[in-house]
Amino acid sequence: MTDSPEIIEVDRDRLWSSLEQLARIGAYDDEDAGTVGVRRLALTDEDLAGRRLVLEWFEDAGLSVRYDRMGNVYARRPGLDDRLAPVRIGSHLDTVITGGRFDGALGVLGGLEVVRALNDAGVTTQRPLEIVIFTDEEGVRFETVTLGSSVAAGRIPLEQARALTDRDGVTVGEELDRHGFTDGDPVPAPEPYAYLECHIEQGPVLAAEELQVGLVTGIFAITWKEVVFTGVAAHAGTTPYELRHNAGLAAALVTVALHEMVRSGRYGDMRATAGRVEQQPNATNVVPGSALMTIDMRCSDAGHMAAAQEALDDAIHRAAEEAKVAVSVRVTARTPPVEFDPEVRTALAKSASNLGLSSREMISGAAHDAGEMAAVGPAGMVFVPGLHDGISHNAREWSTPEACADGVAVLLRAACELAGTPTTAG
Amino acid sequence: MTDSPEIIEVDRDRLWSSLEQLARIGAYDDEDAGTVGVRRLALTDEDLAGRRLVLEWFEDAGLSVRYDRMGNVYARRPGLDDRLAPVRIGSHLDTVITGGRFDGALGVLGGLEVVRALNDAGVTTQRPLEIVIFTDEEGVRFETVTLGSSVAAGRIPLEQARALTDRDGVTVGEELDRHGFTDGDPVPAPEPYAYLECHIEQGPVLAAEELQVGLVTGIFAITWKEVVFTGVAAHAGTTPYELRHNAGLAAALVTVALHEMVRSGRYGDMRATAGRVEQQPNATNVVPGSALMTIDMRCSDAGHMAAAQEALDDAIHRAAEEAKVAVSVRVTARTPPVEFDPEVRTALAKSASNLGLSSREMISGAAHDAGEMAAVGPAGMVFVPGLHDGISHNAREWSTPEACADGVAVLLRAACELAGTPTTAG
Repeated sequence: MTDSPEIIEVDRDRLWSSLEQLARIGAYDDEDAGTVGVRRLALTDEDLAGRRLVLEWFEDAGLSVRYDRMGNVYARRPGLDDRLAPVRIGSHLDTVITGGRFDGALGVLGGLEVVRALNDAGVTTQRPLEIVIFTDEEGVRFETVTLGSSVAAGRIPLEQARALTDRDGVTVGEELDRHGFTDGDPVPAPEPYAYLECHIEQGPVLAAEELQVGLVTGIFAITWKEVVFTGVAAHAGTTPYELRHNAGLAAALVTVALHEMVRSGRYGDMRATAGRVEQQPNATNVVPGSALMTIDMRCSDAGHMAAAQEALDDAIHRAAEEAKVAVSVRVTARTPPVEFDPEVRTALAKSASNLGLSSREMISGAAHDAGEMAAVGPAGMVFVPGLHDGISHNAREWSTPEACADGVAVLLRAACELAGTPTTAG
Repeated sequence: MTDSPEIIEVDRDRLWSSLEQLARIGAYDDEDAGTVGVRRLALTDEDLAGRRLVLEWFEDAGLSVRYDRMGNVYARRPGLDDRLAPVRIGSHLDTVITGGRFDGALGVLGGLEVVRALNDAGVTTQRPLEIVIFTDEEGVRFETVTLGSSVAAGRIPLEQARALTDRDGVTVGEELDRHGFTDGDPVPAPEPYAYLECHIEQGPVLAAEELQVGLVTGIFAITWKEVVFTGVAAHAGTTPYELRHNAGLAAALVTVALHEMVRSGRYGDMRATAGRVEQQPNATNVVPGSALMTIDMRCSDAGHMAAAQEALDDAIHRAAEEAKVAVSVRVTARTPPVEFDPEVRTALAKSASNLGLSSREMISGAAHDAGEMAAVGPAGMVFVPGLHDGISHNAREWSTPEACADGVAVLLRAACELAGTPTTAG
């Protein structure tokens, strides 16, 4: 029994302390949030400084580190049979502009804690373990989410990723070269035996239901559209109503139509959001001459998504007609729904259950690196609850030492089961 | 007959040339409009430079100039009986940030052309004539429209006007002092016998109907409201629809409700516009946590306005409930409907008819200095058509030498009738 995973324990305080130390890199005073946030945009000096600290910890934990040409980092703990495909545990260290300390970091430092706990227990798994840091999950700087993992998975070619530019015209390629990733391993990366990721929920559900962990069944399909209505800016007082070409009205009609679509229940678990609306010239006494809006739609079913996109396009064109404006629509993001691997899900669920943790199955509304990994091999995720209504991408993003340790304990047991410990393997 | 107004003629080219010369002061290259615009914000150096040029012309035309403590300028042409209350003709020389060359300038330079034409014809009117330049009609810099004329009319006390600040914290009072208006005549100004104003329509109606002048019957009542919805910014993917507090949705619901109100026909000639909408944080994948919107409502009937405001408030609160957000509403402007004086309207209509000009009666959807003047004495306005769908507050604002001369010819005849020429008076 001494080698069995039952007695391998996550060190809650060590995990929390690592999260705290990492959060100091890129820390900034967020006046709006009234607290300290984290800003480590992908491939900036702050992002690399964060990685350097974690790489030191990887080395202290005895891991051997390599990286690929996309800057993704793999920190390896050999298995008893080191020829077997590894079990990978990972996430990302980059943040949004107003980030918190858990989003991404918990997945990487959770992987590190799994290794530290195994080291403490003196347990070596049958398969190798690899802790992964994926480059640029957030997509803020180069406007493409899960960039590193999608290159690792072969969905986006390296050259296409390297050509992406930030607002200052700096390319991903220039940044990869600057940071010395050019001589890394080729991509796509060899497929792992399984991929595991622990992540803060970034939503209110687990906290509202007072549950300890979320067992993630998959990731919503996502479609983003950018809609531009073009009318004629005109004086609000002097332009008769029937002579108006009101772009702002068209945008509002679409927002309301979206709301009605969701409430109709015809599109399953669809969530729809008009997050960004920009009218021009945006003055009290001027009929809006143009309006840009974005539409974010997510649901778990590809058929519902297709039907909803069709209904949305109808609504957009009806709105343009009603407001007498021209319209152009551009799809800016589209990912299919992800369903996580049954074996990995079972391993995570069994771990939670053996640990006596309260849990529920849930679908992730947000994209994650695990979604990219699911396309090339078995993958799964465990969520931990966030405080403050699950606020994320905000300095107020918060969780607790207990919640984080619970999620990582699930990760540890599932990793041991999938990688095989002498006991389970033997 | 030699002294009768029938043979006093407006010099079309002189008027046009004056408009052109004045437009060079504050001229700027407007890339969006693809042409040169005019920017003379109230009480700036550009505004004063524009006035200086016009004051030279006033002096060349033999007018004696005085000003009041609000910086309003009165250029006087004595009457045969100089003790009589004057007929005033005027408008403003300040512009919006992206202004054209007609809005305001046509009223002042039209008044100057009336004087020049009378000088050329050697005609002295019974009553004195005064050409007025009102300070800060546009309200862009100090956020209060028709400021100078409302102080002249006694609606706004001078000290209240002086206390208004621009975005840099500079007060109206500081600017009036800087430009040397402190020792001007007291306000309110003595009431004129009548007030006349020629203005570009700033709307599409006259051009669409191919008419030469508009006979303005009054000015719409105006109510501005600023509405702030406060919800909770939340992740668009991870926040279940039923847990959202979507401020952007509330704003869209109000915009659509406004549209339905206007289309219902229940509020007469009501025009309603949601000109400004600002969501926060305004990102594709974030449920809007707050939304500010402005609502501009105008109509000719006070009863319709009152009913519409009540319906609007209902719609705002229904929207807040539907979107589960808090709301605050602030009235930022409210003016009653203006009805112009029957005698002045008749004088203007007779002038247009005698000149053989095609015309129609129309209500002004925009506020004008004449609206303030109507509160203290007989007032009236004549509109000239604008090109490019009547676009105004834009560098593309445009009219023609003929259209401007037609409007000023109407002004000239009406001024002669109201001020009395030796013929008409005799």
